[in-house]
Amino acid sequence: MNQRDPSIAHWPLSERARKLTSSAIREILKVTEQPNVISFAGGLPSPATFPTERIAAAAAHVLTPENATASLQYSATEGYMPLREWVAARYSTAGTPIRTTQVLITTGSQQALDLLGKTLIDPGSKVLVETPTYLGALQSFSLYEPDYVQVPTDEQGLIPEALTPELTAGARLLYAQPNFQNPTGRRLPLARREALAALAREGAFPLIEDDPYGALDYRGTPLPTMLSFAPEHVVHLGTFSKVLAPGLRLGYLIAPEALHFKLVQAKQATDLHTPSLTQRIAYEVVKDGFLDEHIPTVRALYRDQCEAMLAALEHHMPEGVEWNRPEGGMFLWVTLPAHINSVELLQAAIAQNVAFVPGAPFYANDGQTNTLRLSFATVPPAKIDEGIGRLAALIRARC
Amino acid sequence: MNQRDPSIAHWPLSERARKLTSSAIREILKVTEQPNVISFAGGLPSPATFPTERIAAAAAHVLTPENATASLQYSATEGYMPLREWVAARYSTAGTPIRTTQVLITTGSQQALDLLGKTLIDPGSKVLVETPTYLGALQSFSLYEPDYVQVPTDEQGLIPEALTPELTAGARLLYAQPNFQNPTGRRLPLARREALAALAREGAFPLIEDDPYGALDYRGTPLPTMLSFAPEHVVHLGTFSKVLAPGLRLGYLIAPEALHFKLVQAKQATDLHTPSLTQRIAYEVVKDGFLDEHIPTVRALYRDQCEAMLAALEHHMPEGVEWNRPEGGMFLWVTLPAHINSVELLQAAIAQNVAFVPGAPFYANDGQTNTLRLSFATVPPAKIDEGIGRLAALIRARC
Repeated sequence: MNQRDPSIAHWPLSERARKLTSSAIREILKVTEQPNVISFAGGLPSPATFPTERIAAAAAHVLTPENATASLQYSATEGYMPLREWVAARYSTAGTPIRTTQVLITTGSQQALDLLGKTLIDPGSKVLVETPTYLGALQSFSLYEPDYVQVPTDEQGLIPEALTPELTAGARLLYAQPNFQNPTGRRLPLARREALAALAREGAFPLIEDDPYGALDYRGTPLPTMLSFAPEHVVHLGTFSKVLAPGLRLGYLIAPEALHFKLVQAKQATDLHTPSLTQRIAYEVVKDGFLDEHIPTVRALYRDQCEAMLAALEHHMPEGVEWNRPEGGMFLWVTLPAHINSVELLQAAIAQNVAFVPGAPFYANDGQTNTLRLSFATVPPAKIDEGIGRLAALIRARC
Repeated sequence: MNQRDPSIAHWPLSERARKLTSSAIREILKVTEQPNVISFAGGLPSPATFPTERIAAAAAHVLTPENATASLQYSATEGYMPLREWVAARYSTAGTPIRTTQVLITTGSQQALDLLGKTLIDPGSKVLVETPTYLGALQSFSLYEPDYVQVPTDEQGLIPEALTPELTAGARLLYAQPNFQNPTGRRLPLARREALAALAREGAFPLIEDDPYGALDYRGTPLPTMLSFAPEHVVHLGTFSKVLAPGLRLGYLIAPEALHFKLVQAKQATDLHTPSLTQRIAYEVVKDGFLDEHIPTVRALYRDQCEAMLAALEHHMPEGVEWNRPEGGMFLWVTLPAHINSVELLQAAIAQNVAFVPGAPFYANDGQTNTLRLSFATVPPAKIDEGIGRLAALIRARC
């Protein structure tokens, strides 16, 4: 018995737990929580967007004596019925009505990813992902031990023509964030959405459409969901984290009933149900159309900060550094000259009190070491300019 | 492509999802939600025990302008630090201090079960359980496809002598509810706790001590936890569901650091963190010793209803029916004459507007068909007598 390593001595771990490793980058980024660091690393929404008074009023309402029992008792695994109805109504289109029986409320959309892993992925299953893709999805799915296949992308996101029968054969799912993707900020154009939905309908792959950022569309010109083109072949994931508040941990998924039934069983085994209290608070906030007045204010904030970052990049960055111009969301993606390693750059940047996330962890398999993600969501414009200036100086020194 | 069965046509399910089946008993019990049914079937705590005014005041406090941002923003996977410190202090004993670094806040203790399944169980792993055992644990663990081994029990719970080297060899864990177990209401005596902890220390098995009902001890004479005897070999699970309110979905686990580290990584992939809002509300309610005044009122309510049920059983039941006398908790366990099948009895009972849960689903493998679980938690004494009277008449007709 090795007293110094009880995990080995007393706790025989599962295969999947043995594969869990600590992220070196996460360790580096821990220092970025200090207030003197200008951090473009976070994935947090701006607290300036939280409708705190509305949420406080909603909490008071659902906790009055006549409402409190229902808000504090166990409730249905599927979720609070009025909230499910609200989701179904919001996603229904003329051609594609969404049924309440397709909606499952989840403990953040991270839980939706876990439930999809549980129900769709066996060890060795082929899972198709974007290049790069959302790190949180990789973390969830990896516990079910898939073999990832990276699908080629360009500045507009996934390339439908790359989804050849050889690439997709036997795939358990294709995971995609079509709107202002985390980490790249890219938006998938309409024609590509139609092409992916058509492939899903033809049986090439079940399609997971994860859409946390769709509402954060700076010009208010949303594109149709892939769900609307292929409702029997798409699971759509949504969240209140970016339009209300992430600390509520409230998301939802829309799935064909046959799969929904399995997802509900998996959720029951996972946490019985999402808190009754937070579901009822969220419903109380959104039920009368509040999001239609609130979301434009969120968009405006992020648009201004995105423009500040684009201006700062333009002003400070040396030649050879490239970035995209997001039309929404919280992130943009930077490509450095090929010889600059962004993990090494991060260590130098932290010494200068500025932080970002290197690109490497966002690639399922092999990735580019000269990429990085910048978030402008929580940094005011003046600080954005200062932070980008420091970063540019470090890059220029390496060019 | 088979349009009538999209689960087969478009959604290639994982092995574990294919094994998920709908429970026939759950379907039967759906009718018990009607108000004219006297239901001893529920596992719900009595809403009379919810401290609604306290929770409403706490919600208002954590959502004031100065507190709201922290209550609504993303937060640490490990949980809200003051709440973790509160748990550590509450479970520390003179001989066994509990470190905050051992505590993980979970989305109900159901999530703790899922995280333990994720980190400890591979397909085919040996998992030791009580006979009978908690259904929710079977549901969680089963998604990780273990082979269950039922450990013999008697009226006092698990029999330590039954845990022979042959039975325990290679076990990934032993799962037990030592206090007022769901479904039987049994409490494990001190000597057996010591014996199980000693076996765990000797390496016979890692021990999962699930304790949702320990506080509901009618005489206020708690027994020591097995955690206190073997802190490096026990994971202890606790919950606020039975002492505050289950709709908050708040639980916690205490684990040795080496395993805690893996559980935190698994939780991050599962739901990032438990809602910041509910954690801060719960902390605000409990921080000044509120549970010490509140829990005695919860105990008194359940004790009175338990006594009412025992009196009704004594009064109405024919010879040949046996039951235990719980010293705490929400449940008692009935054994019918061997020829009476409790699933068949349930169908007859529902026709008489009275309900219970048959014993069969609580057995991991083979079980007794003449057992059933009665909950007295949500039924007032007069209704208890009426319901038990109806049930006794049905049993008498079958004796």
